[in-house]
Amino acid sequence: MMDLQVTANIRESTRVLAISGGVGGAKLALGLSHLLGPEQLTIVANTADDFEHLGLHISPDLDTLMYTLAGLDNPVQGWGLDGESWTVMDALEALGGETWFRLGDRDLATHLYRSAQLRAGRRLSEVTRDLCSTMLVEHPIVPMTDDVVATMIETGGSLISFQDYFVKQSCAPSVQSISFVGAERAQPHPLWFNQLFDSELDAIIVCPSNPFVSVDPILSLPGVRDAIRETSARVIAVSPIIGGQAVKGPAALMLKQLGHDVSAWGVGEYYREWVDTLVIDQLDATLSARIEDLGLKVEVLPTMMNTLEERVCLAAAVLEMVKRP
Amino acid sequence: MMDLQVTANIRESTRVLAISGGVGGAKLALGLSHLLGPEQLTIVANTADDFEHLGLHISPDLDTLMYTLAGLDNPVQGWGLDGESWTVMDALEALGGETWFRLGDRDLATHLYRSAQLRAGRRLSEVTRDLCSTMLVEHPIVPMTDDVVATMIETGGSLISFQDYFVKQSCAPSVQSISFVGAERAQPHPLWFNQLFDSELDAIIVCPSNPFVSVDPILSLPGVRDAIRETSARVIAVSPIIGGQAVKGPAALMLKQLGHDVSAWGVGEYYREWVDTLVIDQLDATLSARIEDLGLKVEVLPTMMNTLEERVCLAAAVLEMVKRP
Repeated sequence: MMDLQVTANIRESTRVLAISGGVGGAKLALGLSHLLGPEQLTIVANTADDFEHLGLHISPDLDTLMYTLAGLDNPVQGWGLDGESWTVMDALEALGGETWFRLGDRDLATHLYRSAQLRAGRRLSEVTRDLCSTMLVEHPIVPMTDDVVATMIETGGSLISFQDYFVKQSCAPSVQSISFVGAERAQPHPLWFNQLFDSELDAIIVCPSNPFVSVDPILSLPGVRDAIRETSARVIAVSPIIGGQAVKGPAALMLKQLGHDVSAWGVGEYYREWVDTLVIDQLDATLSARIEDLGLKVEVLPTMMNTLEERVCLAAAVLEMVKRP
Repeated sequence: MMDLQVTANIRESTRVLAISGGVGGAKLALGLSHLLGPEQLTIVANTADDFEHLGLHISPDLDTLMYTLAGLDNPVQGWGLDGESWTVMDALEALGGETWFRLGDRDLATHLYRSAQLRAGRRLSEVTRDLCSTMLVEHPIVPMTDDVVATMIETGGSLISFQDYFVKQSCAPSVQSISFVGAERAQPHPLWFNQLFDSELDAIIVCPSNPFVSVDPILSLPGVRDAIRETSARVIAVSPIIGGQAVKGPAALMLKQLGHDVSAWGVGEYYREWVDTLVIDQLDATLSARIEDLGLKVEVLPTMMNTLEERVCLAAAVLEMVKRP
């Protein structure tokens, strides 16, 4: 599988659970998938950004992970499929339809397929497995839950849906609080949740995803936070903040608006209760001591992942940590 | 509007209601639309073929009429849009999705738009008006009803939906009976229904559509058959059967399977109770006397409508009849 000049000395028994949102998380998940077999790596994806649009069930993070691991992702725009066409959207625009959420033609087929399967009574996890299988993705990508959980953003005293905030309003509204409607009644999917209680799980790797809207929804599911606190596995998080900025998306904005320090230190402070080790970028090396003062181990690595090689290198470096006591 | 060398001497006050199904009906409706203004012609369309597919509300006859009058129809396949692309269907097929009902990319936009509007609580007639307006169709195309009516085909002792019979099974099952579920509770749309009671309506033109699954659903709505029997307007039907065959679709098959004569005479016998005049093709001229014996007037005309000129010519000839006592 590995065409790259990255060597990683990884035990065959190594078992990893990766927690991921969309784009940033998918980059590291892709790197991990190049070094670990399908039996060694499970990727649990945030589904609280999922929404119904034009009658279709859209799962942005599942799709980004799936397209990325299938090598079908669009590397420029960071979402959707590479070489996508826009015939349907253009025609819908001409009709005066809703086009603020851009759905490419081939991407639409994914949503049509998923929606039809869900209407037929199948579970999101089953449909995801089918889609991955068709796209020759071997590593299990598991929705955090088969139940409906919706991220809601409180802004200006009212609640708006995540996609309204994120896409329609381009993260312009100031975020006062974030809630995950339905989380308290949702069941974490056993395919990943049970691993938290498995002594053979070596590490939980928190991919560089948005702490508030990608990672928190997963942690908000019943029993997850406690299980992660008590797991025997290492919990290693990669900071999504580099040099005080998010690589993509509103993570930095949200840190600020929610009263946190806009830095890798701020991420460490937010994660400290359930994470052992924070991986920060070389740009942030001077923060190491302060992050260690939070009670966290710190690893300084190049964490920008523009190329496939950088993704695999970061994955290899993180997996090296897993071996160490 | 008329670029063709067809002259028709039509009074400006002429008012016509055209009853139409899909392809064949749309050809004559297009011809009529070239000779009558939007105030003079209303087209009522069968909606009992409408169905939910892939979560979309699809209205095949409304769309065929709309695309045909907009000049956007595919003249070769007889349905859908000209110059259509199939990116979504191809991708859906690769995913193992349902592709027996072929939806082109731009056609999909129509269904996405319509479905979203209906979910938002708008009526089918309102959405149809919007779509027509965007496509610069000036003549009113009115769904027979805003309520749900579904054509069901009885075959081998069980009921199947019309699209299952027509598209999925290519009209292979033998038809024992046809029913229109919901018709008895549906309200005919007032935009066309009220015209039946209007003394200024000069003619009802029954386009060459399938008597059983395009025309009958409209007649099955409460009050319609009685109103047509009692209207002061002429009722002129164009036979969809030419030389014992249907130009397109299962009209001839259904005549046979339902125990009727497979000929223009069979159509006349089926329509005799509510139609005044049957227009038959020159190929069927020898049937004239027998059809007159049914109590119908007969007009023999070239009724094949391959070209726009033929469509307008037939429309002109039919409108000439309206003037005569």
